[in-house]
Amino acid sequence: MADSEKMVPTKVLPTADVYPKRIMEYIEGFLISKTLFTSCELGVFDVLLGSERSLSAEEISQAVGASLDGTERLLAACTGMQILNRHQYDGKVSYSNTEQARLYLTRSSPLSLYQSIHYHSKTIYLCWHYLTDAVREGRNQYEKAFGVSSGDLFEAIYRSNEEMVKFMQLMHSIWNICGKDVVTAFDLSPFKVICDLGGCSGALAKHCTSAYPECTVTIFDLPKVVHMSKEHFIKEDDQRISFHEGDFFKDSLPEAELYILARILHDWTDERCVELLQRIYKACKPGGAVLVVEALLNEDGSGPLTTQLYSLNMLVQTEGRERTDVQYAALLTAAGFTNIRHCLTGKIYDAVLGHKKA
Amino acid sequence: MADSEKMVPTKVLPTADVYPKRIMEYIEGFLISKTLFTSCELGVFDVLLGSERSLSAEEISQAVGASLDGTERLLAACTGMQILNRHQYDGKVSYSNTEQARLYLTRSSPLSLYQSIHYHSKTIYLCWHYLTDAVREGRNQYEKAFGVSSGDLFEAIYRSNEEMVKFMQLMHSIWNICGKDVVTAFDLSPFKVICDLGGCSGALAKHCTSAYPECTVTIFDLPKVVHMSKEHFIKEDDQRISFHEGDFFKDSLPEAELYILARILHDWTDERCVELLQRIYKACKPGGAVLVVEALLNEDGSGPLTTQLYSLNMLVQTEGRERTDVQYAALLTAAGFTNIRHCLTGKIYDAVLGHKKA
Repeated sequence: MADSEKMVPTKVLPTADVYPKRIMEYIEGFLISKTLFTSCELGVFDVLLGSERSLSAEEISQAVGASLDGTERLLAACTGMQILNRHQYDGKVSYSNTEQARLYLTRSSPLSLYQSIHYHSKTIYLCWHYLTDAVREGRNQYEKAFGVSSGDLFEAIYRSNEEMVKFMQLMHSIWNICGKDVVTAFDLSPFKVICDLGGCSGALAKHCTSAYPECTVTIFDLPKVVHMSKEHFIKEDDQRISFHEGDFFKDSLPEAELYILARILHDWTDERCVELLQRIYKACKPGGAVLVVEALLNEDGSGPLTTQLYSLNMLVQTEGRERTDVQYAALLTAAGFTNIRHCLTGKIYDAVLGHKKA
Repeated sequence: MADSEKMVPTKVLPTADVYPKRIMEYIEGFLISKTLFTSCELGVFDVLLGSERSLSAEEISQAVGASLDGTERLLAACTGMQILNRHQYDGKVSYSNTEQARLYLTRSSPLSLYQSIHYHSKTIYLCWHYLTDAVREGRNQYEKAFGVSSGDLFEAIYRSNEEMVKFMQLMHSIWNICGKDVVTAFDLSPFKVICDLGGCSGALAKHCTSAYPECTVTIFDLPKVVHMSKEHFIKEDDQRISFHEGDFFKDSLPEAELYILARILHDWTDERCVELLQRIYKACKPGGAVLVVEALLNEDGSGPLTTQLYSLNMLVQTEGRERTDVQYAALLTAAGFTNIRHCLTGKIYDAVLGHKKA
């Protein structure tokens, strides 16, 4: 080693002008995703959160039950991705969470993305292996990815209790970082009786009751989802949140002043969206409204890239698509709603508000 | 629609300070990769290359045999990724290749990354679904990903003729953009007799004969690889390139002045690397050298991120790892080589040169 340690680079070539840096980054995008996913799954960030000092690769590997060699490489890549800090002191190397990792990648953080990451890693990653087929055929790929028919979309998504909980946790997790913004995008305080259709884990209902002290929220969802939500997500002591079991395409909707449709319309075709919105319009109190929460595409096709990718994800996983504000307005107008406005939150999910005349 | 088209955003919220922009990008990395992969697989860039004008989504969907809806979403995402240009004229939308797409994503371009992309999409993507297991167990995941034992590594990698050609094309494709840099990183003109061990498709051999008009190159590889290379990659008329069939761990190596080991050592453990380097040292002419071509890790663990990710890839797919220049120097020194130097090319692959005393 003595000989080699004296070695210095002979030369460093300048980066060539013609080098497809961006394309190379796109190619390795999935390596980045999976490095993040695996670090979360193994609990690297949780172990570091629970420690009062930075830890060596050996300590981390033992705590998460993984090989030292594999852990070392994983930690190195996490350092390169700037989600871990690397410390070198007295020849010893140790690691600690960056602030971003502590806030978003630990399981116990109120802003945790852990469950969203888990769903991306286990379910969406595999679905996307069939993106080429999805684009070719113009339809979702549950059958190839998981061997389940998608004739009834939510029968496929909820193909087992385990998958249902994972999906609910995904929904829950994203509202940790976007929930407050979408319920405060408009002043909803005039609406005291709110119904969250497909309200799932109740995360958005909670953001409503926090932001608007005078409202009550009914979470409307399939019976098995309501059951799971009561069991895993909503504590008994929340007097202002209640449940209503049903299928919003078939069963009568409870009367309310405001209906929330958060990440619902993007699952469905235009026809089914109008059908659902008409049912809502009919049930809605005069002077009431519907709040559509979705990622909005720019009118001129320029982005946002995340939403363009999500629209492909809707192709791979659902019967729907992401839409522009004009497209949502057209659906709302077709169902009778007027005075339609939208608000871009600057995060992933935006809001569109449509009114029923008083 | 008249009503909705008049609509303007009520407000645009400022992006919150605390928003995990980078982590969200990491999560969607695999969506970006697969969007690129699918666009290549369907031949979107080839169709646009073959056209004299920009094409509509409908024309592209018909040319590639894909659904219009799926194609529209794919093209939108490619626009967001800046690998396609979007034109709007007289209400009609059409698409054309960006310069980067034309150079690197079309099949026929001399700089094409098409085959590398294909291998990433079909093979590496699936292997990486088992990254967590690879880190936990500290070994590659061929068995889970493809149901093949990896007891003999290249039996697994070359598990069918189809897979072997795909792997060879992967190797071939990356030298399209990095080959010239690695063979000119050092002045190799003193070496007239070159042997490229594991020379595969011969792409690097060709870069050698182009850069050094007086050299001849023997491509040493497994008999079935040599057979495939002659069939698919090397035209008969290249008098300065020849083949030698063998297993470099078992069979005697032809005498040469320079041996090239390009992306070979990263497949193997330190022990096997030294074993191979000792065999080379023995066969090498006095005054000769060995050129190791690999992606080099920084000594201080700070990157490059691509190489840190590749080291995880070596865990998932091989028995080896990526190394620092000091680590390569140690292997070369252990085998007897001296006067070891390295050169960073600024692209992915770098070069290390070690000498045998005259």
